[in-house]
Amino acid sequence: MNILIENCLVLPMTAGAGEAQYFRATVGIAEGRIRMIDRDGSRTESFCRQWGADMQVIDGQGKLLMPGLINVHTHVAMTLMRGFADDLPLMPWLNDKIWPFEAKIDRDDVALGARLGIAEMLLSGTTTFVDMYWYEEAVAEIARETGIRAVLSPCFVDSRMEAFEKDLPATLERAAGCDRLTVRVAPHAPYSCSKENILRGVELCHRYGIGMHTHLAETQAEMEQVRKLHGLSPIRYFDQLGVFDLPTIAAHCVWVDDDDIAILRDKGVSAAHNPQSNMKLSSGVSPVERLLQNGVNVGIGTDGTSSNNDLDMWEEMRSCAFLQKLADNDPCTLPAYEVLKMATVNGAKAIGMEGELGVVEEGAIADVILIDIEKTHFYPRHNLVANLLYCGKAADVDTVIVDGRILVAGGKIVGVDLPALYAAMEKRVAEILRR
Amino acid sequence: MNILIENCLVLPMTAGAGEAQYFRATVGIAEGRIRMIDRDGSRTESFCRQWGADMQVIDGQGKLLMPGLINVHTHVAMTLMRGFADDLPLMPWLNDKIWPFEAKIDRDDVALGARLGIAEMLLSGTTTFVDMYWYEEAVAEIARETGIRAVLSPCFVDSRMEAFEKDLPATLERAAGCDRLTVRVAPHAPYSCSKENILRGVELCHRYGIGMHTHLAETQAEMEQVRKLHGLSPIRYFDQLGVFDLPTIAAHCVWVDDDDIAILRDKGVSAAHNPQSNMKLSSGVSPVERLLQNGVNVGIGTDGTSSNNDLDMWEEMRSCAFLQKLADNDPCTLPAYEVLKMATVNGAKAIGMEGELGVVEEGAIADVILIDIEKTHFYPRHNLVANLLYCGKAADVDTVIVDGRILVAGGKIVGVDLPALYAAMEKRVAEILRR
Repeated sequence: MNILIENCLVLPMTAGAGEAQYFRATVGIAEGRIRMIDRDGSRTESFCRQWGADMQVIDGQGKLLMPGLINVHTHVAMTLMRGFADDLPLMPWLNDKIWPFEAKIDRDDVALGARLGIAEMLLSGTTTFVDMYWYEEAVAEIARETGIRAVLSPCFVDSRMEAFEKDLPATLERAAGCDRLTVRVAPHAPYSCSKENILRGVELCHRYGIGMHTHLAETQAEMEQVRKLHGLSPIRYFDQLGVFDLPTIAAHCVWVDDDDIAILRDKGVSAAHNPQSNMKLSSGVSPVERLLQNGVNVGIGTDGTSSNNDLDMWEEMRSCAFLQKLADNDPCTLPAYEVLKMATVNGAKAIGMEGELGVVEEGAIADVILIDIEKTHFYPRHNLVANLLYCGKAADVDTVIVDGRILVAGGKIVGVDLPALYAAMEKRVAEILRR
Repeated sequence: MNILIENCLVLPMTAGAGEAQYFRATVGIAEGRIRMIDRDGSRTESFCRQWGADMQVIDGQGKLLMPGLINVHTHVAMTLMRGFADDLPLMPWLNDKIWPFEAKIDRDDVALGARLGIAEMLLSGTTTFVDMYWYEEAVAEIARETGIRAVLSPCFVDSRMEAFEKDLPATLERAAGCDRLTVRVAPHAPYSCSKENILRGVELCHRYGIGMHTHLAETQAEMEQVRKLHGLSPIRYFDQLGVFDLPTIAAHCVWVDDDDIAILRDKGVSAAHNPQSNMKLSSGVSPVERLLQNGVNVGIGTDGTSSNNDLDMWEEMRSCAFLQKLADNDPCTLPAYEVLKMATVNGAKAIGMEGELGVVEEGAIADVILIDIEKTHFYPRHNLVANLLYCGKAADVDTVIVDGRILVAGGKIVGVDLPALYAAMEKRVAEILRR
């Protein structure tokens, strides 16, 4: 089905300095791509002539069209553990709660957790997520079925290599033939993976022609431990192991120095900034402004729902701006438009889709969202971009289109029986706890 | 009209250690008060017999009833300036944007700004707000008309004493005879008010038998300036002037030392914590956990929409928890239930309404909200209280009752034509900018 969005505001995220950041237009989507952005009404008729059979028309009045949000770091199936363990110190949190729970979950649990998390992401305007977990093959299955775009990263720690070695080819197989899905390899972190296993991950990336996704420089403890064991910062250590010769997303990058930053830039590593997780777990503050100023690409992620506890990119963007202004003692740091770029343009770059995703442009893939801007918190309209970044909410997302398919319409997710999903989740979690 | 809320979950915010924090019950509201919390079904029939004429019945299935949120520090009419000036350094922000705009606004502008802000607050579950601004009489009028509960604080700086001396009695008159409205005096801050004028404020409080509301210890610059001018910290300075002999809400309390904290405790001053404003303006981090541990009452405020930019207490609660965990380097700091208490129980205490507001108890005033908990981000239900604090959103607020009157039903504000309000705001703001 093709789509005509009539007379909406468009925030393409492509404005150069001095150009209007948004404008009014009618937008045509056909065969999965944005085909027309008609600002003066001169091209809509011919678009409809060309693509008109089976055209869905959406009234864009009172709505703003923008690129779908790209969540560059999460563990979507951890919805299973949302609210299971909060307000605890790190080690009891992991040892007594998260790890024992995770030890009990199986492939089908992960599929169900992914189903709930993907629904939450779509409803809040996230059209692409970069995932890392066990049984990633199950996440691939659900992503494929639900229509969201995903980068799936089977994860390993030293104690789970065998499972990983099965999960990676299975995930690749699930993703095969679906343009929305790509795969990466995820060494969990420098402190949980041996040098040999990290090198094995690098080897597999080269073999399959895929990239890397890892946690890196998240906590001070990690930094100190890696320095002690390997005499290097976590970033230098991973660089030395050849990880950064592959396209890499490094989640967190909180504890980084100038040399680390230079490596990230020179090797084209993208950082995934997770401000709410970093705050909730007392990890620290990533120097995002310094990373950006030094040419490092930084996207925004929610992390998993054990450490956030939702998958809401709007609040994550806001926390990103607020936290950096505080940490840098500078209210000018990370202005609104820059943060919106982080969650769209930079996200696309992080997954190697620059220009294809994260923008509303003719020829780009039709991953777009319509925001209902007729809300109290969007008035007055001194600056709609500032309103969007500082006041926009998950519930303002009216329509979500991925790959030219409407997945959310009028704030409702299409074709998903949410009450049944909630009931299944409650039943499943009770079962897991009994295992 | 009386109200019966059948079979909802109730989070009364009164649980002692070891007690269930929430339970299922049917709740009866009559003549503005909570009259019945029926946990076993034995009392509903007699409640209906007694109060049944003109009873509105609400199905509480899938909903959670809790106290309305209390926003202990805002400038509601600053919605006029939402998005007008963001991402700027403090002095250009004030000198070039906020103050010139404020110099142009009149009483009717303030009324319109308050109308929009109150709609936003009600829709997001705030039932009481503590305001501070010019033309507070206009805010009193709109608060009275819309049905929200408010503490109205006519504000003064040295250059506006004349206007303040008119605004205070006018505000008192507007509030007279309306139980929902009380009045306080607001010296803007120690750096913007002379000693003589602060003492004049104290005198007026004693004359009218009302309390104080002020900004205090917000920025490092303020602290240094007050120390230089008066040889005292802002808190000690205000204490010495007799401010704290009156019931006082001190907004911010970021730059406080142990002696300051002891004074706040000993004098029963309530702190209003505004984490998002403090972050966005790079003000610093209030030591909330230390204040609470030392016996200071701390509530939560949004501050005005020039520095936040919304009036959303859910995000404010979350930022409060996240920020403190980061600042204290302790993920155990400010657990979910404590933060919910700050926004309810502590808020009520801050305005001298402990036990009357901020709780769901028989006999308490019926300022309550119903949350739609059938949302993706509220599943699974390992811990509903954690889900509420870490995932609850403004848009989850289904019903808002203030003083026993339903002001929001099914997520819609009752009796307010929002499109007309938006249009009026756009027209008004354009006019102000032309003045």
